[in-house]
Amino acid sequence: MANDTVTVCEVGPRDGLQMARDILPTEVKLRWIRQLAQAGLREIEVGSFVSPERVPQMADTAAVVRGALAIEGLTVCALAGNLRGVVAAHAAGAHVVAIPISVSDTHSRANVNKGTDAQIEMVRSAVDWVRAQARPMRIDVAAATAFGCSMEGQVPLQRVVDVAAALAATGADTIALADTVGYANPAQVRATVRAVRAAVGPRLSKLHLHDTMGMGLANALAGLDEGIRAFDSCLGGLGGCPFAPGASGNIVTEDLVFMLANMGHATGIRHAALVAARQLLADALPGETLRGATAVAVLPRSFAG
Amino acid sequence: MANDTVTVCEVGPRDGLQMARDILPTEVKLRWIRQLAQAGLREIEVGSFVSPERVPQMADTAAVVRGALAIEGLTVCALAGNLRGVVAAHAAGAHVVAIPISVSDTHSRANVNKGTDAQIEMVRSAVDWVRAQARPMRIDVAAATAFGCSMEGQVPLQRVVDVAAALAATGADTIALADTVGYANPAQVRATVRAVRAAVGPRLSKLHLHDTMGMGLANALAGLDEGIRAFDSCLGGLGGCPFAPGASGNIVTEDLVFMLANMGHATGIRHAALVAARQLLADALPGETLRGATAVAVLPRSFAG
Repeated sequence: MANDTVTVCEVGPRDGLQMARDILPTEVKLRWIRQLAQAGLREIEVGSFVSPERVPQMADTAAVVRGALAIEGLTVCALAGNLRGVVAAHAAGAHVVAIPISVSDTHSRANVNKGTDAQIEMVRSAVDWVRAQARPMRIDVAAATAFGCSMEGQVPLQRVVDVAAALAATGADTIALADTVGYANPAQVRATVRAVRAAVGPRLSKLHLHDTMGMGLANALAGLDEGIRAFDSCLGGLGGCPFAPGASGNIVTEDLVFMLANMGHATGIRHAALVAARQLLADALPGETLRGATAVAVLPRSFAG
Repeated sequence: MANDTVTVCEVGPRDGLQMARDILPTEVKLRWIRQLAQAGLREIEVGSFVSPERVPQMADTAAVVRGALAIEGLTVCALAGNLRGVVAAHAAGAHVVAIPISVSDTHSRANVNKGTDAQIEMVRSAVDWVRAQARPMRIDVAAATAFGCSMEGQVPLQRVVDVAAALAATGADTIALADTVGYANPAQVRATVRAVRAAVGPRLSKLHLHDTMGMGLANALAGLDEGIRAFDSCLGGLGGCPFAPGASGNIVTEDLVFMLANMGHATGIRHAALVAARQLLADALPGETLRGATAVAVLPRSFAG
């Protein structure tokens, strides 16, 4: 039993809500984020600085960031796909900006309107800009479609390594590998984490996994085995990818936390409080199906989480 | 990539149908079993020799066994909880009889009306009886509730090891560890497989996993890592346990096969044919919810299975 700490980063307010049919009012988003923080989540991606015409669900991200900053002890993350978004995240006061870079060039053009190499250049500019500001802001980059692409199919491992190495060279603080479309399998996760870590070292810190093929937790286990100690996930398994048809939701926060707790990993998160936080989503997003096993199962009486 | 063979044993016609509200006619069961065999499944647990008053869905097991024996290349398994059932399985011509022994004494009494030690004695008598017959029949024993019990809670690992050792001493051919109520986690699977294998060697050959907590495939991965090369599963994730409230279905055959194929393991099973075989279940069991991710997901175009 590896009794070490694992960081679970809730990305529901960003990855989950951006795919939802309904738009949550700012105050409801903040009430949900406060519930998540009270359950023990210490890192939450609260929104995305993206064109409101493109993703209207994210139009209030600056207000959500500001509201979330009032929550004691919470690391407030916001996504930004371009330099303008990074500047806006900094202006709003985000502790962390997360920048996606698709390893698949086709997906990159669909997602951020730039090819992969051009987006890496953007990251370099963003890092330079952030480092020149008085207020520091952590820069997390996510190598999207690192395990396959719905448009390009298989993504060569060497290309993933090269992109990760280029991202490391920009001076970004951390690198995540994202299974944007849910194609990863555990053997691939192991091979990819090993190869990327050989290239960029401990800067590779997180996996962002989707559960499209039902392998999400198995892939998380493969990452854990390789020493990964941070994972993105969504309460109720919300999420998807607007440019990845058929890609279903993220791995389910409450199920991930349950697995980690049962394996002896400390997360600081109370499972029962997570399950309770699903109610707000169920009420506010009647059009969405909440996924997950442990929220509906009869849990072992011995489970103390 | 471990390019070795994994045996997937479909237990839907037994573990799945015994929990279903509707009773499938014998001919529909056999049509389904033929579809499964055509998809490449080489081992199917087709029914259970149990009191028809207790489990009316299994009343036609002898006829199902006889019908399944006509399927070329199929290993026909039947479950039996007592000596009378073992004799009936042999009389029907089953290639394999599977005998459950709950490590939890309370669950054992509920399931087979005998305590664990008395059931081990029954296995010993059954082995002696089978070995005295002219026609050989493989004897698979399954240590149920090996990872926890909804009635007793945690099941001590030493007790699991002791029961497995006692089962090995009966002369049964193979031993499976069953997560009857779905409480297992990957760390526990690893520790349990290691400890039991240290006691009984390669006779430990299979895991029977449920997906109650969403960890089914992660637990299968943990077993694979420890060298397990046989798994029970149910098409559409049917199943449960009549004496384990809240225990949901088995791991999903088509999702397990998808994971194994993507990891480079040979199963001989065609995923698309499994997905097609769900239709018969959907039509014949309108009251059941079919689970599973890969039957509804948009699969990667590169997937050839």
